[in-house]
Amino acid sequence: MEKIVMKFGGAALASTEHIQNVAKKAIAEKERGFDVVVVTAAMGSMAKELAKMARDLSDNASKRELDALFSTTSHLTSTLVAIALQEEGYDAVSLTGWQAGIQTDDMYSNARIDEIDASRIEKHFTQGEIVIVAGEQGIDNSRNITTFSKGGAETSAIAIAAKLKAERVDIYTNVDGVYTADPNHVAGAQKLKEISYDEMLELSNLGSQILHPRAVELAKKFQIPVIIRSSEIDTVGTLLKEEVEMEKNLIVRGVAYESDVIRLTVGYDAYSNASLADMFTILAENRINVDIIVQAIIDGLKPTVSFTILKEEFADALRVLEDSKLSLGFSFADFEIGLAKVSIIGSGMASNPGVAARMFDRLRREGILVKMVSTSEIKVSVVVPQDEMIRAANALHDEFNLEQALYI
Amino acid sequence: MEKIVMKFGGAALASTEHIQNVAKKAIAEKERGFDVVVVTAAMGSMAKELAKMARDLSDNASKRELDALFSTTSHLTSTLVAIALQEEGYDAVSLTGWQAGIQTDDMYSNARIDEIDASRIEKHFTQGEIVIVAGEQGIDNSRNITTFSKGGAETSAIAIAAKLKAERVDIYTNVDGVYTADPNHVAGAQKLKEISYDEMLELSNLGSQILHPRAVELAKKFQIPVIIRSSEIDTVGTLLKEEVEMEKNLIVRGVAYESDVIRLTVGYDAYSNASLADMFTILAENRINVDIIVQAIIDGLKPTVSFTILKEEFADALRVLEDSKLSLGFSFADFEIGLAKVSIIGSGMASNPGVAARMFDRLRREGILVKMVSTSEIKVSVVVPQDEMIRAANALHDEFNLEQALYI
Repeated sequence: MEKIVMKFGGAALASTEHIQNVAKKAIAEKERGFDVVVVTAAMGSMAKELAKMARDLSDNASKRELDALFSTTSHLTSTLVAIALQEEGYDAVSLTGWQAGIQTDDMYSNARIDEIDASRIEKHFTQGEIVIVAGEQGIDNSRNITTFSKGGAETSAIAIAAKLKAERVDIYTNVDGVYTADPNHVAGAQKLKEISYDEMLELSNLGSQILHPRAVELAKKFQIPVIIRSSEIDTVGTLLKEEVEMEKNLIVRGVAYESDVIRLTVGYDAYSNASLADMFTILAENRINVDIIVQAIIDGLKPTVSFTILKEEFADALRVLEDSKLSLGFSFADFEIGLAKVSIIGSGMASNPGVAARMFDRLRREGILVKMVSTSEIKVSVVVPQDEMIRAANALHDEFNLEQALYI
Repeated sequence: MEKIVMKFGGAALASTEHIQNVAKKAIAEKERGFDVVVVTAAMGSMAKELAKMARDLSDNASKRELDALFSTTSHLTSTLVAIALQEEGYDAVSLTGWQAGIQTDDMYSNARIDEIDASRIEKHFTQGEIVIVAGEQGIDNSRNITTFSKGGAETSAIAIAAKLKAERVDIYTNVDGVYTADPNHVAGAQKLKEISYDEMLELSNLGSQILHPRAVELAKKFQIPVIIRSSEIDTVGTLLKEEVEMEKNLIVRGVAYESDVIRLTVGYDAYSNASLADMFTILAENRINVDIIVQAIIDGLKPTVSFTILKEEFADALRVLEDSKLSLGFSFADFEIGLAKVSIIGSGMASNPGVAARMFDRLRREGILVKMVSTSEIKVSVVVPQDEMIRAANALHDEFNLEQALYI
């Protein structure tokens, strides 16, 4: 039987009415003849409540305990969806991460899936049951509960789909698809019919909250079709796949932005390549996500390296740098807050030179200061003052004619 | 190193302030040199919230899913206690039922512990950690999460203590010990310094909410000393052990009562011993707790059997009887609600005849109708109209001079 994996986010699980709606959507797929896995995220309000309780108790709670604590929330929603399905007369069974066979490494709060033993899910399928899996969690080799980072339920869904060789993954979320820019802040933003894994990966990495980058990576790796769709309204979503038609030859397909970026700059008395490698190794080992890196080696000046991180990881990053100051051999570190990143993305960019130049020119004309730049084959990102973020996004959306991206 | 198990109920875990208090008590024992296991129950408000959500979704949720759902609550409190301990600078680790090695049968919502593999707890002890175990939960052989019945966290605590050969179990609760009767409703009720397992077992079975009967049975079986003490105020509690001194030669040591008792009566056209055994077997198989059983075989009358159950199990019991009517061969069933059970307990009763007679006589003088009677070696229970319950308890407390039970 063909299999489908459906993932529902916190907003789609916010109340018993929402949960009944989730059950109805799962039943519709079951009735279409699929074996169905539903992956649930945390109920938003409950996760916040637990975070507050933990914070009230300690600013320094161990990540192991926080993972164990937060794992209860998606566990809880998975059981509620099972109950709602049973009420409708369908056989359903909820599984925690460990029950679903999800084995991870031991990086608490940011664990990665090492392996999935899907035999239990398969067994429930043979019994005709709809299987609900608590998202964003697994266990490590020492049988400790681990959770994935933000958006981890999508990672669960796509990893399970890959293991089950599922037909596709439907990501039910609070947006009805992927847009050329955030329609709440950019006038004329258009919904895309299709988007490539690579474009989506850039979008995700650039702070679009729709899909976690790791989930996109996984989908690309296993070539799992993913549909981003609304849990609220019944419209066609955006299909995520390997290659998309380059309709209208638009070079830039989306504008993304991300606030609360912090720039850290580390300076050395003398140039030492080895210590730079060491620094990013140590940051990576502590699972601090470094984004844009700019190294400046200018004759007559002390060498510096700047990189951006997200606000959430600032305290951790400072601690790591402090702890490793001697071994890393840097002489000073400073930081700048109140920054944001604005990016343009498009698979067509690689074969169209001058896109970055056009972007910088428009920003200059708008009087927006560019503080850092980073480019890849299919995107250009700039770091700008946070106050200018929305204005920059609108200007770029206009510059690259994205309001004409009428795909649907 | 000597080991101690401390159990905290929902009221003791109701807020972050309460949880900090739990941590302080655990630290005090750790500082006394004990290896400490803390067993947590559910946070009361959260369990109620979850129950409401489940009820909103279905009146007929599967017990498997309800168990999975409710297991999240004590799991959650266990992590919060660990976080509070870490904040105080102590190494602590929370474990779910399955992580703590608690293997049960598959009777959801009323599971029994088959076995405990305490190796993981022991391992954490060798690392100097305080271990917090989520109470009232385990897993069955198919790795489904199970929960125990009401008060199951005490069962967890005592079973773990037995396995670890712990020095004792401290049950921190919302009362400061075991009284001769409920001090809220019986004037002159006195706190007992000690009580025997057998007396406590009767008290528990009679509806005293202090300790679950299964927990007492376990404590007796493994001869684990248990102290019932207050989580709020720092006073001496009541020690539960095998033999207690019979100070002042009091025959009756306590009066207990339980409301919301329902009497079910089943009648047969002809006497058939076999079908009676069948009936209580079927009820037991469905984990319906039958309490007092009275069989009336009177010449010329149809044979009947009456038994009491608790209100919570009424719907289940009716369903079982209905489903099994043909095979059980009874001709009618009726029931009476609005009843209560009042009991007197005392180890000295066995060697003092006439205690029951004195009880009945006092109730007759009070004009309280006795509807059913049940006796054991160390207790006499009567079923009376619920309206008369408190008055009966006070009269019996007075009749047996329990206000003179000044043990402390």
